[in-house]
Amino acid sequence: MHIKDTNSGTVITTSPQDMPKRSWRTFLIGQPLPTADAPHQAIGKLIGLAVFASDALSSTAYATQELLVTLLLAGVSAFYYSIPISFAIVILLAILIISYEQVIYAYPNGGGAYVVARENLGETWALIAGASLLTDYILTVSVSISSGVAQLISAFPALLPFRVSIAVVLVFMVLLLNLRGVKESGKVIAIPSYFFIIIMLALVLTGLTRYLTGSLHPVIDPPEINLVSVAQPVTFFLLLRAFSNGTSAVTGVEAISNGVTAFKEPRSKNAGITLIWMAFILGSFLIGITFLAYQIKAIPSETETVISQLARTIFDTRGFLYFLVMSGTTVILIMAANTAFAGFPRLGALIAQDGFLPRQMAYKGDRLVYSNGMIALAVVAALLIIVINANVTNLIPLYAIGVFLSFTISQVGMAIRWRTVGKIPPGAEIKHGDGTLKYEKNWSVKFFINSFGAVTTAIVVVVFSISKFADGAWIVMVLIPLMVGAFMAIHQHYETVRNQLSLKGYGSMPEVVRHRVVLLVSGVHRGTLEGLRYARTLSNDVTAVHVSINDQETEKIVKRWEEWGDGTRLVIVESPYRLFLDPVLEYISRLEDQLGADEVITVVVPQFIPVRKWSRFLHSRTADTLRKALLNRDKIVVTELSYQVK
Amino acid sequence: MHIKDTNSGTVITTSPQDMPKRSWRTFLIGQPLPTADAPHQAIGKLIGLAVFASDALSSTAYATQELLVTLLLAGVSAFYYSIPISFAIVILLAILIISYEQVIYAYPNGGGAYVVARENLGETWALIAGASLLTDYILTVSVSISSGVAQLISAFPALLPFRVSIAVVLVFMVLLLNLRGVKESGKVIAIPSYFFIIIMLALVLTGLTRYLTGSLHPVIDPPEINLVSVAQPVTFFLLLRAFSNGTSAVTGVEAISNGVTAFKEPRSKNAGITLIWMAFILGSFLIGITFLAYQIKAIPSETETVISQLARTIFDTRGFLYFLVMSGTTVILIMAANTAFAGFPRLGALIAQDGFLPRQMAYKGDRLVYSNGMIALAVVAALLIIVINANVTNLIPLYAIGVFLSFTISQVGMAIRWRTVGKIPPGAEIKHGDGTLKYEKNWSVKFFINSFGAVTTAIVVVVFSISKFADGAWIVMVLIPLMVGAFMAIHQHYETVRNQLSLKGYGSMPEVVRHRVVLLVSGVHRGTLEGLRYARTLSNDVTAVHVSINDQETEKIVKRWEEWGDGTRLVIVESPYRLFLDPVLEYISRLEDQLGADEVITVVVPQFIPVRKWSRFLHSRTADTLRKALLNRDKIVVTELSYQVK
Repeated sequence: MHIKDTNSGTVITTSPQDMPKRSWRTFLIGQPLPTADAPHQAIGKLIGLAVFASDALSSTAYATQELLVTLLLAGVSAFYYSIPISFAIVILLAILIISYEQVIYAYPNGGGAYVVARENLGETWALIAGASLLTDYILTVSVSISSGVAQLISAFPALLPFRVSIAVVLVFMVLLLNLRGVKESGKVIAIPSYFFIIIMLALVLTGLTRYLTGSLHPVIDPPEINLVSVAQPVTFFLLLRAFSNGTSAVTGVEAISNGVTAFKEPRSKNAGITLIWMAFILGSFLIGITFLAYQIKAIPSETETVISQLARTIFDTRGFLYFLVMSGTTVILIMAANTAFAGFPRLGALIAQDGFLPRQMAYKGDRLVYSNGMIALAVVAALLIIVINANVTNLIPLYAIGVFLSFTISQVGMAIRWRTVGKIPPGAEIKHGDGTLKYEKNWSVKFFINSFGAVTTAIVVVVFSISKFADGAWIVMVLIPLMVGAFMAIHQHYETVRNQLSLKGYGSMPEVVRHRVVLLVSGVHRGTLEGLRYARTLSNDVTAVHVSINDQETEKIVKRWEEWGDGTRLVIVESPYRLFLDPVLEYISRLEDQLGADEVITVVVPQFIPVRKWSRFLHSRTADTLRKALLNRDKIVVTELSYQVK
Repeated sequence: MHIKDTNSGTVITTSPQDMPKRSWRTFLIGQPLPTADAPHQAIGKLIGLAVFASDALSSTAYATQELLVTLLLAGVSAFYYSIPISFAIVILLAILIISYEQVIYAYPNGGGAYVVARENLGETWALIAGASLLTDYILTVSVSISSGVAQLISAFPALLPFRVSIAVVLVFMVLLLNLRGVKESGKVIAIPSYFFIIIMLALVLTGLTRYLTGSLHPVIDPPEINLVSVAQPVTFFLLLRAFSNGTSAVTGVEAISNGVTAFKEPRSKNAGITLIWMAFILGSFLIGITFLAYQIKAIPSETETVISQLARTIFDTRGFLYFLVMSGTTVILIMAANTAFAGFPRLGALIAQDGFLPRQMAYKGDRLVYSNGMIALAVVAALLIIVINANVTNLIPLYAIGVFLSFTISQVGMAIRWRTVGKIPPGAEIKHGDGTLKYEKNWSVKFFINSFGAVTTAIVVVVFSISKFADGAWIVMVLIPLMVGAFMAIHQHYETVRNQLSLKGYGSMPEVVRHRVVLLVSGVHRGTLEGLRYARTLSNDVTAVHVSINDQETEKIVKRWEEWGDGTRLVIVESPYRLFLDPVLEYISRLEDQLGADEVITVVVPQFIPVRKWSRFLHSRTADTLRKALLNRDKIVVTELSYQVK
């Protein structure tokens, strides 16, 4: 502890050595980090790819499967369409990447769609984007962990009955990792991320080589097909639904734009390059896996994933390489949840700073991360996994609509921004959000790119809304307006508090001239006398009050008070109905009615507190009950005087 | 509210009109009853039979079945033994009734085995009896409600999957009824009790008539027999086990002796006559039902009770009379739980008054009943039903051993009492417990009766312990010592508290000469200034403390404090690790180290409290956290100053 006196007062600096021991916490999440350490916690491109791209990359592990599930409704012959659909998805990916590159350079302080919308489209659209993104992050955790567990079950089918429990435990393990801080969790997940990239590359390349040499055979002993009914015809609507399901592959590309601040300087450049790397890897994997899955006639199934079928076909047996693919996929899927743990709390903090979410979400914890946001994310995602029984297909419709809604909003916002830029006279500067805008020559090209992105993603939103409405997309359509409503109610509340606390027009209140003290007396013992001693330091106007439930008891107390009460007035409140709280409240209300503006009442409640916690239930907690009952009376203060009992 | 001034101070009397509205409570359990109303709540013999005998009477609904379940292990041919066994049980009942008659006259203040043991055998045996009885009351609730639900399922087999939920709901309905008060619940259960007695009498008499006229045929379409394995031979041990199971019929006869105080004066006489009525009805029903069940070749089964088989055979169809028997049995079984709700809280209060259970159990609620004890009973019984899946046979072994242990203890206690009486010189009086003892002529007859009762019930305890050990009797043998240990730990705790609070040798403490006040400042606003205003009334020595997490924020506060702080010293505690609680605790500890015996510190925490509860989660509850952390510091008082926000 370091003390320094300045002209405005005394300044004391505390250090972790001063603080109480917190060994189990330190063991789990590490020593507290000082605020000044923040820049050292920034990450480079290599770790950045691991932290922010694991979500997007890992989605290659389920995107093909989700695409095939829909096509299966038209029978296995419809699987052919998976190849053109995967190319369409990659084109969509390219549009998104170009757009987000521009977002990263335009908003180097991060925040993605929320900030873009706030600066260009106004509060309401920003809140809609925020609600969509927060929903998506929660779903990312639920989807990726459930999907990782599904992978694990393909390898060890005996674990099937425990899948929900395993998934929930994993959520909290990822939470723990993230509470340690971005840099440290980044280091931990860098290894599995790169391991996954290498092993998937090996899988795809081996598969293509075998295809070209003609040695690739169909999957042996594929899982049974669960055909619910007769095969449907291949309609345009069915293909749209398959496309929608497959676009789950591109979800996650927004994460880097939301988390630009996590990167080392030059932030935008580092983040931008990382985004391009990610897109390239993601696109190749998606096309490769979908193509090979079609060639080996893989069957989407709940009991064995497409990746598992691919790996055992391409590598011939369930041997060592199969094991590497499966474990790599499992770990990356679990680690993908990490992206959400990086993004959700940052976005939550941003929205909380604007006053639309509880302030507590904007506080950085002792490891320099927004711990409250992380905990909230883990709890909600775990609940969702339980509700939805860790079934990935159930979650997909909920997932994709929000992502594409936020894509659309951010593209529209950027398009409007470029139009604004185009209107600025060359050489001039206008204020825009936290920064300024200048004229740029090629604004119209950028305007066109973002507009095209906006139209494309908007089409996807509409496709989703229609094709998936009954499957659960309606939930998101109900949820997002509700969340926006909640944001606004919270904002309204904070505004009201701010106004009521404001010192504008605050005349000085009259000094308190009369301080009445009420001392509750349940018996005459050391605790009571300590209470009396304290009450006397507060005021000369002390009244002892005893609630009488038992006449003999009361008589004894009156007699003992004469001996020990030192002349203090004792009021007996008779309670013929044996209630304690109600008569006390009634008595206090009576005093309150006579109270002037320059008067205040303090109720002193002596309370003995056993040192050993187990024995606390043996004593009624009068003070707690009374405090809660009187919380909303402005002129009445309840003070608990604890008297320790060993 | 009525105020009167006496020479020892002011006395205020409150009435329910003064109290806050509590309409839902009043609706559920009625208006509060004044303490003076207690004598009017006493009950006569007719209602007494309904309240205290419903447990014993209702056990005729399952005793025969439980007896047959054991005999079934030796095949249906062994059912013949049910008749002699039921006669043996009735002889046991007669011994118990004679003994308890004497207990009722000797201890007109109730308490049964617990008080008998306390006065004659000492604390330890009293606690063992108390533990057994409390356990039994809990089991009575679980057994009778589960059994009532089983009866219901015989009539409506479709309800089978819901039996646990139905049982739990019924427990809480009986609780509600009892929270209304003894007299009122007695009135409600008098109707079904007498209805049950009449309909069972009709059943037994019709059955006997048909047997004598030779028109009684075996049960048609009996439930399937669940023979687990090959039939065992009829061994003496098997018969002992069947006898043990059958004695569940006599459980409940102790209830009247525990609850003598509930009766109108002359208490002992009223209670004694009620006990004899009960025994007579109980004995006839047990023998009648067992005999008829044997004649119609009824099969004990989980899907249809023996009573159901009897009723549909004797009354020929599942017609109106069958319906009356089944509904009567169901209702009496559920109402039997009432006996436990009458006995458990009374016994609990007695033990709590002696300081062996939490004091709260000795407080009478606003309807003149020991509400806390009732609520505890309902919660534990409901948990037990859930754990044991509402299966009666599972509960029987647990049930009977405790009852018979308490029987034995009370008989031994009474025997010792008579020996004491025999030793008193004629004409003399000795102090004994709360009253006195005189010589009585026929003490040796009474001594013999109680000794015989003691030996018989002790034999039953031993039989139970051996024959039922593996079935669950061991649980009770573990549980009772644990409960006695807990009782003693609680007693020890209250003794320690009493000693530490005692004013013996309490010299007057030095007056507090220095009162330091620490005002926590998170920002400068109306709430803070209210806090400052209050802090000033406490002492002239006020220090404002701000924990600095953000430098810009702090600078603003320092500046605003210069304007509004009215010259009060401001200390800035820097928290480079962004913790709030730890730096405050560290600062307070530092002050505490310098504290003299005549000094005290009050920490004032301004806290704004939103009126609408939903918005409370939007504000951190600093005061609560700090108070909990400082609860065990004697010289530091934490005062929360609530500032209301609309």
